[in-house]
Amino acid sequence: MAHKGTTPSKAFQDTAAGAQHCQSICVQSIQYCLEVGGSHVEPSHMQLLQDCAEICETTGTMLMRSSLQHNQVTAACAEICERCARSCERFTGDAQMKACAEACRRCAAACQQVAQMRPGSPGYHSVP
Amino acid sequence: MAHKGTTPSKAFQDTAAGAQHCQSICVQSIQYCLEVGGSHVEPSHMQLLQDCAEICETTGTMLMRSSLQHNQVTAACAEICERCARSCERFTGDAQMKACAEACRRCAAACQQVAQMRPGSPGYHSVP
Amino acid sequence: MAHKGTTPSKAFQDTAAGAQHCQSICVQSIQYCLEVGGSHVEPSHMQLLQDCAEICETTGTMLMRSSLQHNQVTAACAEICERCARSCERFTGDAQMKACAEACRRCAAACQQVAQMRPGSPGYHSVP
Amino acid sequence: MAHKGTTPSKAFQDTAAGAQHCQSICVQSIQYCLEVGGSHVEPSHMQLLQDCAEICETTGTMLMRSSLQHNQVTAACAEICERCARSCERFTGDAQMKACAEACRRCAAACQQVAQMRPGSPGYHSVP
Repeated sequence: MAHKGTTPSKAFQDTAAGAQHCQSICVQSIQYCLEVGGSHVEPSHMQLLQDCAEICETTGTMLMRSSLQHNQVTAACAEICERCARSCERFTGDAQMKACAEACRRCAAACQQVAQMRPGSPGYHSVP
Repeated sequence: MAHKGTTPSKAFQDTAAGAQHCQSICVQSIQYCLEVGGSHVEPSHMQLLQDCAEICETTGTMLMRSSLQHNQVTAACAEICERCARSCERFTGDAQMKACAEACRRCAAACQQVAQMRPGSPGYHSVP
Repeated sequence: MAHKGTTPSKAFQDTAAGAQHCQSICVQSIQYCLEVGGSHVEPSHMQLLQDCAEICETTGTMLMRSSLQHNQVTAACAEICERCARSCERFTGDAQMKACAEACRRCAAACQQVAQMRPGSPGYHSVP
Repeated sequence: MAHKGTTPSKAFQDTAAGAQHCQSICVQSIQYCLEVGGSHVEPSHMQLLQDCAEICETTGTMLMRSSLQHNQVTAACAEICERCARSCERFTGDAQMKACAEACRRCAAACQQVAQMRPGSPGYHSVP
């Protein structure tokens, strides 16, 4: 039974997983920056980490439910991840910030692709 | 002490409060629709209620931290609230759906205004 | 039509509203503390503000859906709000921290009461 | 540089990853149940899936920030995951519900262990 029901497509699942990973590393980075202090707790940097964690969480959830309303959200996520990556990259030689920037860049790239997908696009629907 | 620190502007605070109210009524409506059943649990309607609750939550949080990254998110929130309102309005004579549609429309209108605001815009910064 | 469907009881709705208010002021306080700096960005204080915002959000959402699973969550929320209040109160003379502590205490008290409520308890179900 | 800063311990990271996985499959299952309809959209089942997704998200986030306030939240998460697993297992022969139940049981077991951990416990702190 239960032939009905939709699974998110591979593109959606992969992007959701990347967004969850990015959310995790941003949350971890916030705590890290608080421990390190100094320029790491600059308000605009910390705001970006929080915004990025938040929008990644929403993006991941929307993609897991194969949302038809994801386009503007994935686009917003791509933009915020991009800004967060740039903010993290200013801390040269800092392994945590480097890892965070990389997760943000990967998430931004995946979201940018998915943001273009509309029902009927290749990759939008899961292939049974 | 503590002269520093920013409070969100009145426009941000009001929009955040409207988004929180909209999130609450969407969450309540999901449970309501499940109890009522029938066309109330149509997947696309229920998906909209969930997406709307989620993006309203994110929007409210970003505005409470006076986020400089809010523009695309508030724009996405306006669009999703608008769609959710239309979906709810199809249930004529249903008080819960009517109340939900109204909260969505109000949130959409507020978000649409705030989405245009950038640093330096009137209403962006709180007046001490 | 639509006689079915449950509305959260008044106790649930009021506690949810208090939790949402507490979440808002914690999110605002995080940004405030970052702007102020110094002992305001002590990792354990900032972690409490974040944890408190998060568990308040979850609590508010669960109560809005009249969740039968709320008991341990509202109890956890009461405990975390209480700790957050104590952390905020150390900043004597700081209006933002004072307002945050007050919202936390009120939310803790409401959650503690609701945490005892089980189906059949007075106040659990909405009176039509 | 950046010797300071804490990474979540392996136990925390693994539990957080399991909670994120459980959240994802619950969110996916909600949409699945809506598509399937019938007893899959029974309000108490759907409420459990939503509560489980929500508390897993909060748990994952708190563990990623090595929260000292996680104990009651991870305990609550274990309990809700357990109930959600039981609700999913009633749908014998349904692969999605089976996968969801398994993720819930794994998350419950991990959370139950972590819920006992307090600062100083073995596994609480990351080993550099």
